[in-house]
Amino acid sequence: MSEEKEKVVIETETVLTALENEDFDGFRSLFLEQHPYDQAKMFVKLEQEERSRVYQYLSPEEMAALFENIEDEEYNYEMYLSEMDPRFASQMLEHMYADDAVDVLNELNKDQVASYLTIMDDEAAKEIRELLHYEEFTAGSIMTTEFIAIQANQTVKSAMHILKHEAPDAETIYYLYVIDEDKHLAGVISLRDLIVSDDDVMIGEIMSERVFSVSVGEDQEEVARKMRDYNFLALPVVDFQNHLLGIITVDDIVDVIDEEASDDYSKLAGVSDVDSIDRGPLSAAKKRLPWLVILLFLGMLTANLIGQFEETLDKVAILAVFIPLIAGMAGNTGTQALAVAVRRIAMGDEEEGNFKIIAREAGTGLINGAVCGVLVTGVVYFWKHDLYLGLLVGLSILATLTVATIAGAFVPLIMHRLKVDPAVASGPFITTINDIISILIYFGMATMFMQYLI
Amino acid sequence: MSEEKEKVVIETETVLTALENEDFDGFRSLFLEQHPYDQAKMFVKLEQEERSRVYQYLSPEEMAALFENIEDEEYNYEMYLSEMDPRFASQMLEHMYADDAVDVLNELNKDQVASYLTIMDDEAAKEIRELLHYEEFTAGSIMTTEFIAIQANQTVKSAMHILKHEAPDAETIYYLYVIDEDKHLAGVISLRDLIVSDDDVMIGEIMSERVFSVSVGEDQEEVARKMRDYNFLALPVVDFQNHLLGIITVDDIVDVIDEEASDDYSKLAGVSDVDSIDRGPLSAAKKRLPWLVILLFLGMLTANLIGQFEETLDKVAILAVFIPLIAGMAGNTGTQALAVAVRRIAMGDEEEGNFKIIAREAGTGLINGAVCGVLVTGVVYFWKHDLYLGLLVGLSILATLTVATIAGAFVPLIMHRLKVDPAVASGPFITTINDIISILIYFGMATMFMQYLI
Repeated sequence: MSEEKEKVVIETETVLTALENEDFDGFRSLFLEQHPYDQAKMFVKLEQEERSRVYQYLSPEEMAALFENIEDEEYNYEMYLSEMDPRFASQMLEHMYADDAVDVLNELNKDQVASYLTIMDDEAAKEIRELLHYEEFTAGSIMTTEFIAIQANQTVKSAMHILKHEAPDAETIYYLYVIDEDKHLAGVISLRDLIVSDDDVMIGEIMSERVFSVSVGEDQEEVARKMRDYNFLALPVVDFQNHLLGIITVDDIVDVIDEEASDDYSKLAGVSDVDSIDRGPLSAAKKRLPWLVILLFLGMLTANLIGQFEETLDKVAILAVFIPLIAGMAGNTGTQALAVAVRRIAMGDEEEGNFKIIAREAGTGLINGAVCGVLVTGVVYFWKHDLYLGLLVGLSILATLTVATIAGAFVPLIMHRLKVDPAVASGPFITTINDIISILIYFGMATMFMQYLI
Repeated sequence: MSEEKEKVVIETETVLTALENEDFDGFRSLFLEQHPYDQAKMFVKLEQEERSRVYQYLSPEEMAALFENIEDEEYNYEMYLSEMDPRFASQMLEHMYADDAVDVLNELNKDQVASYLTIMDDEAAKEIRELLHYEEFTAGSIMTTEFIAIQANQTVKSAMHILKHEAPDAETIYYLYVIDEDKHLAGVISLRDLIVSDDDVMIGEIMSERVFSVSVGEDQEEVARKMRDYNFLALPVVDFQNHLLGIITVDDIVDVIDEEASDDYSKLAGVSDVDSIDRGPLSAAKKRLPWLVILLFLGMLTANLIGQFEETLDKVAILAVFIPLIAGMAGNTGTQALAVAVRRIAMGDEEEGNFKIIAREAGTGLINGAVCGVLVTGVVYFWKHDLYLGLLVGLSILATLTVATIAGAFVPLIMHRLKVDPAVASGPFITTINDIISILIYFGMATMFMQYLI
């Protein structure tokens, strides 16, 4: 691993030196030997002057391969494009896979998009224009139109001929889609099946008519789930009349799975986005402050609530000692239940009724509450030699854990029902809700049984 | 979506009816029409008697396709295998992709594995035995040996011939690996490049000698990262002498990415595993209790700590009101910092030094602490009309948030340095640590400035 890293560092330095020395041939031979992903990693670290030189040294096609591999966390596409000669930029976009070009263009304003599309080759501009219409996070937004379509009444030989011809431009050649005269999706054949078949067999005889497809408006998370479960390398995208519009390839899905998982993770932690690199404390603070301020005000509510019990507290100051314990346990069980519910919804595992889920969570909370409650009663009794205090804390834990577990599962279920992303119910939010619940239970019981505590 | 689900329900029912009526032909034609993933989903819901019938109605090869698609969360492999005739079971294992068969065998004890391997075809048994050696979570444990290898001194035509012959058994045919006489990995060629080349071109001329490979002991997470970044459909696995041992295909990687993300997520929530389906409250409670009990005892420490300040509390009972607010804010900032650090480590983004990360987190905590501190001072002042109390709570928030943010980032960094999975530092754990820190700061300051508060 460290050896590998060293190698990368040395290679990067040689490439940079060639660039600085304006060594056109040296730079090209060293740089183009790298995988485009590594080229992109080097490119984003360059200064503006060096980047300008790269635009001159590479062809639009070479630049396109690099550009497809830039990770867009920093949203610097606009800057890079503005540094290029407009004609070079539009030729580069033309050479990119249409879905990647659309990702780039989505970062620009409409005027800029229009001007690049105008100077672009008509066919490429048309493809991109079509893709620009689809809403973010749908199948349409991640599909590409560079697929290979054949007809059922062709022979294997003629299909192979089409394949050889279109292979350089297609995003995948490993599935060929069979369409009828009206462009309806009629079947699919894998390259594997094509290769093992004899030349004069008809496609219609060997194609599979049971095609898995996704509709263009489907959520990308749903598409990712299908692709993962069924192990497809590509999936066709159709409109409501089953016209073949595009395909989604597995590499795009890997990115979706990664993004969605990070997204759920960020929300559980109460951060707007943990994945993008924090350049400095100010930008990091900006990402975390919104949640903190909301939670601060919710915390004030909790404080206000305890304030209502000031009289009880004045009489029995020792009650304060167990506030963080009880509130903390409520928060912990709530977060657990929340995480289970959010993942369950994300995995599409919704075959059970909501009532059954809530009933099970209530049972889980009751068991955990009973175990923790008994433990706590014992410890407090031996520590403070006060059975009533022990019972109060133990019973509060029992009641709190039961209610907090139900709340942790209930909130995401409700959100899902209301078509809100259940992951929005972040961990800190549930924790604060459960702070309030636990304090009501604890001080409510303490006030009721006051006579035994003094 | 709901339409699709309805269709699935109807199909499932028809298949089940055929099975119950012992309708051999009806069951086979309906069941085998389904994708193996759907077959597996139906299969795991059957009763034992129905399953026995399935083993009789399907061939070992058909059963193998189904078995590859069972999700192993429930670890029922052993039960299914024991229900089958041993010869049927070993023939099924023979027909499975070697990496999937190994996953199944890993759930059994050594005696069982040995007995299945004994009655198995020799070659299949040898392949499986080789794979059984590799440690879990390494490249070796997820690779398969069913790849296509060719020689540099072959023509495209003869390579295509090999391909046609081996395609039915290979896990992927989309990359062909070029090896020398000693089985060293010498190059790679994609099927795409092969197809667009003329028949009599030599493989050595068109292959790429710059092959990305992973070493057999490499962490599967590292492999997944490479595959995602470089958009490969398969990666070759080599030993330290660059002998080609196997390949890893993208479908296995999709599962790895999914698992690892779920794993980090579970740990942030303090659950041992959120992904497996909880069958009932008892099994759910068992998964969550270990963390809860640990946290309960940590919470007792916190309670004990507040107990030390009972004198302060007796004098100024209002202090208790702000305990959950301050402890909660400490927990929230700590969880945010933790999540960012864990993801950063998971993404392999470690180019910066640890000192720089801690310095940035300190800055972030200071900014967030200052903003929240000022807000809180204002609110408490207007609410309680007590400037000193406001200042105490505000300053505590400032100090607490700074320290808690540093702690949240520091703990996973230390764990990573100690080669412990940083995600083990779960959210609830960090939250409880930060409870303790915040109470020390808050009551420490309150005791120091007691004279202004009474």
